[in-house]
Amino acid sequence: MTKPLRLGIAGLGTVGIGVVKIIRRQAAMLEARTGRPIVITAVSARDASKDRGVPLSDYAWETDPVALAKRDDVDVLVELMGGHEGAAKDAVEAALTSGKDVVTANKALLAIHGQELAECAEANGRVIRFEAGVAGGIPVIKSLTEGLAGNEITRVMGVMNGTCNYILTQMEATGQGYNALFEECGRLGYLEADPNLDVGGIDAGHKLAILASIAFGTKPAFDDVQLEGIQRISLEDISAAADMGFRIKLLGVAQRTGRGLEQRMTPCLVPANSPLGQLEGGTNMVVIEGDAVEQIVLRGPGAGEGPTASAVLGDICDIARGFRLPTFGQPAEMLQDAPAAQAELPAPFYLRMALQDKPGALAKVTAVLGECGISIDRMRQYGHSETSAPVLFVTHKSSRASIDQALEELEKIDVVSVAPVALRIETV
Amino acid sequence: MTKPLRLGIAGLGTVGIGVVKIIRRQAAMLEARTGRPIVITAVSARDASKDRGVPLSDYAWETDPVALAKRDDVDVLVELMGGHEGAAKDAVEAALTSGKDVVTANKALLAIHGQELAECAEANGRVIRFEAGVAGGIPVIKSLTEGLAGNEITRVMGVMNGTCNYILTQMEATGQGYNALFEECGRLGYLEADPNLDVGGIDAGHKLAILASIAFGTKPAFDDVQLEGIQRISLEDISAAADMGFRIKLLGVAQRTGRGLEQRMTPCLVPANSPLGQLEGGTNMVVIEGDAVEQIVLRGPGAGEGPTASAVLGDICDIARGFRLPTFGQPAEMLQDAPAAQAELPAPFYLRMALQDKPGALAKVTAVLGECGISIDRMRQYGHSETSAPVLFVTHKSSRASIDQALEELEKIDVVSVAPVALRIETV
Repeated sequence: MTKPLRLGIAGLGTVGIGVVKIIRRQAAMLEARTGRPIVITAVSARDASKDRGVPLSDYAWETDPVALAKRDDVDVLVELMGGHEGAAKDAVEAALTSGKDVVTANKALLAIHGQELAECAEANGRVIRFEAGVAGGIPVIKSLTEGLAGNEITRVMGVMNGTCNYILTQMEATGQGYNALFEECGRLGYLEADPNLDVGGIDAGHKLAILASIAFGTKPAFDDVQLEGIQRISLEDISAAADMGFRIKLLGVAQRTGRGLEQRMTPCLVPANSPLGQLEGGTNMVVIEGDAVEQIVLRGPGAGEGPTASAVLGDICDIARGFRLPTFGQPAEMLQDAPAAQAELPAPFYLRMALQDKPGALAKVTAVLGECGISIDRMRQYGHSETSAPVLFVTHKSSRASIDQALEELEKIDVVSVAPVALRIETV
Repeated sequence: MTKPLRLGIAGLGTVGIGVVKIIRRQAAMLEARTGRPIVITAVSARDASKDRGVPLSDYAWETDPVALAKRDDVDVLVELMGGHEGAAKDAVEAALTSGKDVVTANKALLAIHGQELAECAEANGRVIRFEAGVAGGIPVIKSLTEGLAGNEITRVMGVMNGTCNYILTQMEATGQGYNALFEECGRLGYLEADPNLDVGGIDAGHKLAILASIAFGTKPAFDDVQLEGIQRISLEDISAAADMGFRIKLLGVAQRTGRGLEQRMTPCLVPANSPLGQLEGGTNMVVIEGDAVEQIVLRGPGAGEGPTASAVLGDICDIARGFRLPTFGQPAEMLQDAPAAQAELPAPFYLRMALQDKPGALAKVTAVLGECGISIDRMRQYGHSETSAPVLFVTHKSSRASIDQALEELEKIDVVSVAPVALRIETV
């Protein structure tokens, strides 16, 4: 009989309990697929007395996750506590230095301390797996690191925060504003304890930094991710974008430019009839482009007990099968320092403004755009409301610098009655 | 320095040359990612003198692929000849029994002889990988076998023949009939030498049989796949389906029923606004549903030099990394004989017929449907053309047997002027 793979699970929240349930329910299936029994030997959580709906008395209990990580009867630490400092980091380091592999769902930990942890893992001959940290149940880390290993990756894009996508699609579907939907998300339990992790784009930015590292062979650099949340997206923009054939998404984009690595997690317009444009509710989507494969689109649930536990189990099965590879797909010492891009690649932009109802107003605006080197693809002016008229532009490809210059110049002329909004249109 | 992984490539058509190009262009990248050099030592094809656009003189040339497979300087046979008998099968068996691993894009070989080859591989301690055989560049075999290993799979669906999907979407887009588009596909080189492999659903059926084996732990059983091609899909059905909010796809579905395994590759209706419904042109899509992950959708190019070579390289990199697993995800001797389902699971159906313009015609038809236990969800009658009127029904969930019985009864009554068409509606 083959030696069982022995797990220590730190963190018994929704995901941790989901993992316990699958391992109890599917023991025979998991053994058939991996060739060895997968067993839980010990668990760790703050409150041992809480009823979590599954029997836990078979497992040793450790109050301290670091003690769990060091146990002799644990081969793999399954870290599902979260947080990029403190107990989670301590436990992961303790596991690696004690010769245990690590499976985690902790994107913040990997995005912020990934390089250090990858080096620690390799120095100790161990692996760190984190499929559950990015896009929930979608096997995106595996697809990028393994399935597409023959590709030079050219761009990675993703809608990777379900709460933001829920808010943006509900704004269009129901006509409710951002604030009302933000409150609804709070009531539904869709928000992190610090909601800025969701709506500020931080959580999705962590995921993007991890994908960028694997895709481009660079050290994970979350600090270089340009972040912009969805808090300022208005119903006007949602409906104007729709009217021009677009939807607004909190979209992550990572790509190499001539001068550095561009990493953005910002609201963008995408064509309404593209896979990204059609993505509704809390579902996640990742788009990977490579020189050989062209474009792959992966779609699935980005959160929840079952989907996240599915990703954790995928990593555990890989370890049980003896699949071992470096944290970010190549040895940590080979990962390059990627300077942040000096300027993002040019793109079409969407501009919305309100013009005062004066003769020559539109001429003044278009003159400013022209002077800034911005050429106009499409323009729409809507019926006047009192003394100002909403005007939308879709530009041809422009640099962000030209757009910023134009926004500044437009502030100075006396025909623009509301500060213009500019959103990038991502070509997909 | 780590030992290089030495490849022998049999078959230098589009895909074979694509693989050669990537290995020449990306040698450094592949070595960084896998930890060892990946080199080609020998190749095999019929005509050594043909200019294939890449330098091949560095490689030993074998006219006989079996001889290539047995060479001492080959670790992995990369079989890209195709065909489920003859040279391809002989070469694969020779490789396995000579202690070499196999990477292939040959879905027919795996769908028809998969069990025998899996047993041969395991008896010799070798692996067979075939990501390129199913859905081109999409890492679907990897996602199903590895990423979703913690799931009991409940259903697998796929649009996996780009030519059929091109024809069906062009019928709707251009209003051209099946025959015109079939001829266009021939001119564009989109058809196999035997076009029935494409339009008869055989090629896609091979892919479904492979996915079903992995998903359900059963021996691959292509003979049990219920096949129906797209040759009889009419423009009337395309537009009537669109009018009811559906699109017609050549859709593969594999799922367990209470009595056996259901495997179908048949034209089905899917909601026009679903990911499957929105899939246009030659792109492929696979939908995987599991008890934990809920639903994952994978989309990408199903054919072509780059995408197929990308999948082949993914398999080669896995072997270079030392990832080894049984052919269909668990040992061949554990795969079960799956009896073909006695009856497919009930589903809603689309029925199209033309009724003669007589009093009571619709009453007669609805009476027949009622007698067969078919309940009607929606019905549309269109304006009369001369003496008959097109009528569409969408039924509630019905068994295939009830539908077949109704079709038979409808033939007997004198108000149906054109034989009715029945197509399953797949809930997605």
